[in-house]
Amino acid sequence: MINIAILGYGTVGSGVYRVFSTNHEVVESRLGERIHVKYVLDLRDFPGDPVTEVLVHDFQIILDDPEVSIVAEVMGGTGAAYTFTKKALEAGKSVCTSNKALVAEHGRELMKIAKEKGVSYLFEASCGGGIPIIRAINDSFTADVIDEVAGILNGTTNYMLYRMGEDGSSFDEALKEAQAMGYAEADPTADVEGHDACRKIAILSTLAYGKYIDYRDVPTEGITKITIEDMKYAEAAGARIKLLGLSRDTAEGTTAIVAPFLVDKSESLYNVNDVFNGIYVHGNMLGDAMFYGSGAGMLPTASAVSADIVDAALHLSKTIRTNWTDEAAHMVDPGEACWKFFVRTKAAAQEMAEGLFPGGSVIRIPECPDETAFITPLMRQRDFDAAISKLGEDAVSVIRVYQRA
Amino acid sequence: MINIAILGYGTVGSGVYRVFSTNHEVVESRLGERIHVKYVLDLRDFPGDPVTEVLVHDFQIILDDPEVSIVAEVMGGTGAAYTFTKKALEAGKSVCTSNKALVAEHGRELMKIAKEKGVSYLFEASCGGGIPIIRAINDSFTADVIDEVAGILNGTTNYMLYRMGEDGSSFDEALKEAQAMGYAEADPTADVEGHDACRKIAILSTLAYGKYIDYRDVPTEGITKITIEDMKYAEAAGARIKLLGLSRDTAEGTTAIVAPFLVDKSESLYNVNDVFNGIYVHGNMLGDAMFYGSGAGMLPTASAVSADIVDAALHLSKTIRTNWTDEAAHMVDPGEACWKFFVRTKAAAQEMAEGLFPGGSVIRIPECPDETAFITPLMRQRDFDAAISKLGEDAVSVIRVYQRA
Repeated sequence: MINIAILGYGTVGSGVYRVFSTNHEVVESRLGERIHVKYVLDLRDFPGDPVTEVLVHDFQIILDDPEVSIVAEVMGGTGAAYTFTKKALEAGKSVCTSNKALVAEHGRELMKIAKEKGVSYLFEASCGGGIPIIRAINDSFTADVIDEVAGILNGTTNYMLYRMGEDGSSFDEALKEAQAMGYAEADPTADVEGHDACRKIAILSTLAYGKYIDYRDVPTEGITKITIEDMKYAEAAGARIKLLGLSRDTAEGTTAIVAPFLVDKSESLYNVNDVFNGIYVHGNMLGDAMFYGSGAGMLPTASAVSADIVDAALHLSKTIRTNWTDEAAHMVDPGEACWKFFVRTKAAAQEMAEGLFPGGSVIRIPECPDETAFITPLMRQRDFDAAISKLGEDAVSVIRVYQRA
Repeated sequence: MINIAILGYGTVGSGVYRVFSTNHEVVESRLGERIHVKYVLDLRDFPGDPVTEVLVHDFQIILDDPEVSIVAEVMGGTGAAYTFTKKALEAGKSVCTSNKALVAEHGRELMKIAKEKGVSYLFEASCGGGIPIIRAINDSFTADVIDEVAGILNGTTNYMLYRMGEDGSSFDEALKEAQAMGYAEADPTADVEGHDACRKIAILSTLAYGKYIDYRDVPTEGITKITIEDMKYAEAAGARIKLLGLSRDTAEGTTAIVAPFLVDKSESLYNVNDVFNGIYVHGNMLGDAMFYGSGAGMLPTASAVSADIVDAALHLSKTIRTNWTDEAAHMVDPGEACWKFFVRTKAAAQEMAEGLFPGGSVIRIPECPDETAFITPLMRQRDFDAAISKLGEDAVSVIRVYQRA
């Protein structure tokens, strides 16, 4: 029997508890041993919930119990979660988490401690909910040089953008709807400003390229400026607007960005809608691969945390090999990155825009008769910025266009 | 340094050779050791090809060399491939393969020998080309009860069906095109009759449910009867016709089938087109997950074989845990399986058809004014067969409709 503790009985924590109570037989058949949830840590009480039997309010009890070999940190945040994770690893317990903020912020230190102590710090659930993308990168694409990762990594914003595109909802309406559905939090900043996706693409890219990418080095734009008119233009161009976490690795260095992109209908990511997540990976031998699945929600994320727990249980007193590294990536200057841009300008600026962005392909929609809109050829971010600044107030909207490397 | 041998220098074999010559640095950085292709076995000579340096014509040389710890069997077939695999495993060498026919035919015996000898028999590349579906099932969905696997598992037929639907090509035209593109073999029977997909769904289902599914117990229909008119109807119904390998596991037992299905545009599999493969998996905690990627071709398949080789190298002298089992699945009588059916009948039989299949939703296309076509409600295969037989020659076409469990 392997004893585990769950830190936090919120959405994910109660999901993990449910996974091991519902699926204990199948887990035991695969692992050859039973997994027993010995403790659940939460400051709250849950009268009438069976969890009461194993509920504790003091982390020290878990830390001091040598029978607990694996801890699931599903509290979130970078405060107590950090302290508890560090202490657990130092005490020789493996830690499995869904906490992308903590992995992005303190992953380097925590991975190092895990290695020193001969245990594992696993975080499959930190990116893409139930989608087993991290294990695929670590264990399946081992013979490939991965050169691109492009992901719809945030279910909340994907839901909002999809509703805006399908129903013509405004940003505010879509946000309210997402909150009513329980997809968006009361303070949606981390989702709509792209902070959540930023941490995820930093983690995925670190593993994909085997070079450490600091999330603070990833230029990040959210979706708050996207309007219904942008959606109409995207539709006219045969595309959808998606918030992508995107990175590429070449001999020149690593490029990473989080921003809204026009995604053409020929791309597999185009069809990743609603609250789903999708992650596209390109390898020099593998070619195109895409993973799709429930990106959020109690059970898919809990499924991924629980799979990490089983993995840790199969490798007790061992550090599971991953591609994680401390060696910093050489980041390409964001001004040097090349993109196609979708640009909307006021009609008065048409001639100037054509001069500044020669060779653009024009898009017209009946809803905006007084505008000139076009997609530029591939151009350097720096050159684009210089040109667009000349348009001043006449530039209505700018969105990058996704194109595979 | 870890020495390997590649059996067969055909499409996949030369791909594996290329993976380790092109990506040797990144493989070494992940594995901590170099992988050296010591031998390539092929009866042919390849004058001018660098492979000549390591080419041998006699398997015994490889078998007798204790330095060779891993063998890639990429010859295909169930003759020499079987003998060589068995001997290699018995000699304590791990074997990695793309050979679904061999795994489906002799997997039980070969897995047993591997276990006895403390080595591994790995076959990620046998299903879905470069898509890491087998490792995901074995290592990532460990905390889930998987209850459905539905896959577009054959790139050749998916390409053909897509061309028929998009261009209005006939079956014969699409086949010729697939052969010209190098996707279909001179004798396309294994692809178009569904035999290839049958072996793949048997392998995937065995791992997904942890119960042995014999491919001979999987009812298999190919795509040879699909016409352009069927395609038009599918389009009118908002669907595409796809050859699915489909299995479900419930308390009543396991259902498995290979057949063409109408797949609605709301399904993620609808967008798996061209030569791509897509595999949908449903878990009781995970929810929906879908894997998409290049299903065929030299490099994607070679990428998967090579990843297995790296895995075997990381676990030398150890049997890597999988969900494989010898315990036979309890198969549900195919007559008891429930499906919706798309049915086309001659107009003269309209009244009779309406009586036999009450509650069907009618589909009309201008190309077939003299037909009655409809989708039945969910019904048992046995009941459907009894009803359709009464229509005799008036039944023009029958295709199942995919619906998630």
